[in-house]
Amino acid sequence: MSSGTFITFEGPDGAGKTTIINMVAKQFSSALITREPGGIEIAEQIRRVILDKGNTAMDPRTEALLYAAARRQHLIEKVKPALEEGKVVLCDRFVDSSLAYQGYARGLGMDEVLKINQFAIEDLMPELTIYFDIDPELGLKRIKKNDGREINRLDLEDLEFHQKVREGYHLLMERFPNRIVRIDASGTVNEVFQRTLQLVEGQLAEKRPSN
Amino acid sequence: MSSGTFITFEGPDGAGKTTIINMVAKQFSSALITREPGGIEIAEQIRRVILDKGNTAMDPRTEALLYAAARRQHLIEKVKPALEEGKVVLCDRFVDSSLAYQGYARGLGMDEVLKINQFAIEDLMPELTIYFDIDPELGLKRIKKNDGREINRLDLEDLEFHQKVREGYHLLMERFPNRIVRIDASGTVNEVFQRTLQLVEGQLAEKRPSN
Repeated sequence: MSSGTFITFEGPDGAGKTTIINMVAKQFSSALITREPGGIEIAEQIRRVILDKGNTAMDPRTEALLYAAARRQHLIEKVKPALEEGKVVLCDRFVDSSLAYQGYARGLGMDEVLKINQFAIEDLMPELTIYFDIDPELGLKRIKKNDGREINRLDLEDLEFHQKVREGYHLLMERFPNRIVRIDASGTVNEVFQRTLQLVEGQLAEKRPSN
Repeated sequence: MSSGTFITFEGPDGAGKTTIINMVAKQFSSALITREPGGIEIAEQIRRVILDKGNTAMDPRTEALLYAAARRQHLIEKVKPALEEGKVVLCDRFVDSSLAYQGYARGLGMDEVLKINQFAIEDLMPELTIYFDIDPELGLKRIKKNDGREINRLDLEDLEFHQKVREGYHLLMERFPNRIVRIDASGTVNEVFQRTLQLVEGQLAEKRPSN
């Protein structure tokens, strides 16, 4: 059995996940921050196939299977060994991203996408998933602010898609209420950080022997 | 709805599948012979990841997901369009290979591997699967005869594995008795060809209007 603690972070780009994960990790000496493909050679190769701009005809199901394959390899080579060493693993995006983006927003079906992901991860689900919830319009504004440009038509199409992604995440919260905890990501960095730290510490405290 | 006829061929290497498929195809003007990855760029890229000799640490589940991904793309880009044009598609290996080799012989579990393949192919199963059954020892001898060398220790380990593959195919015949038809592949090329042709013609006759 693994003795570490597996925690995943979910939510749209612009919600501040990366910033907060880095802040949280500094509080724990044995934390591993990772995200797929995470430098794992096979997973990186798979990701290159997914991102190859020449591959315009890639079917959404092919893509979902490739994400699941990269996830499997990253899990086996990086996450599982760290958990076995007793580390706190903080993973930026995991199964729920595939369910919200591909299963729900792209319309493949959450149950369908869950099936191939269950094959990929077996029973290695995170103990805690922290979902950074933010109004997509606000998330978009934050991204644009960093880019220093105006919001354009494509961004607005994006907005509709990200509304669907958010609906997907909300359905997942209903489905996995014991695993997924929502954080309001519209607050200040310090507010979001404090709340996240509290959740992570709570998860670690649960596992500590009580004496 | 597709108006073509989708037929797959299964069995170990050395059973004579390729020879027979080529002979059968000559009998039909509109036949497409194919096998994964079949020149489909995305599927070829995926196959290169699977076969990369540097990827020694590839997990068997990663591999199964990659095979399913390549299968999906080959199906969508090559098999499905040919069926929609009314062609007879003769496909050398398909889902059953993954079930027999990875699901059964490698021990991942047939139901597990079937799950990700159902995701990959949706409902596009072959109407007929012709299984070339041969004693693995005889199959091995045929391969060696072509290579002109003696059977060695590795070949014998291989033999045990191929006994398991054969068991897997036999379980599949029991499970899908209406789809999979066994042919005794120990006969002469002409015997096996005649029997295969009979099965393919029978399948096509079933679909012809009766008047």
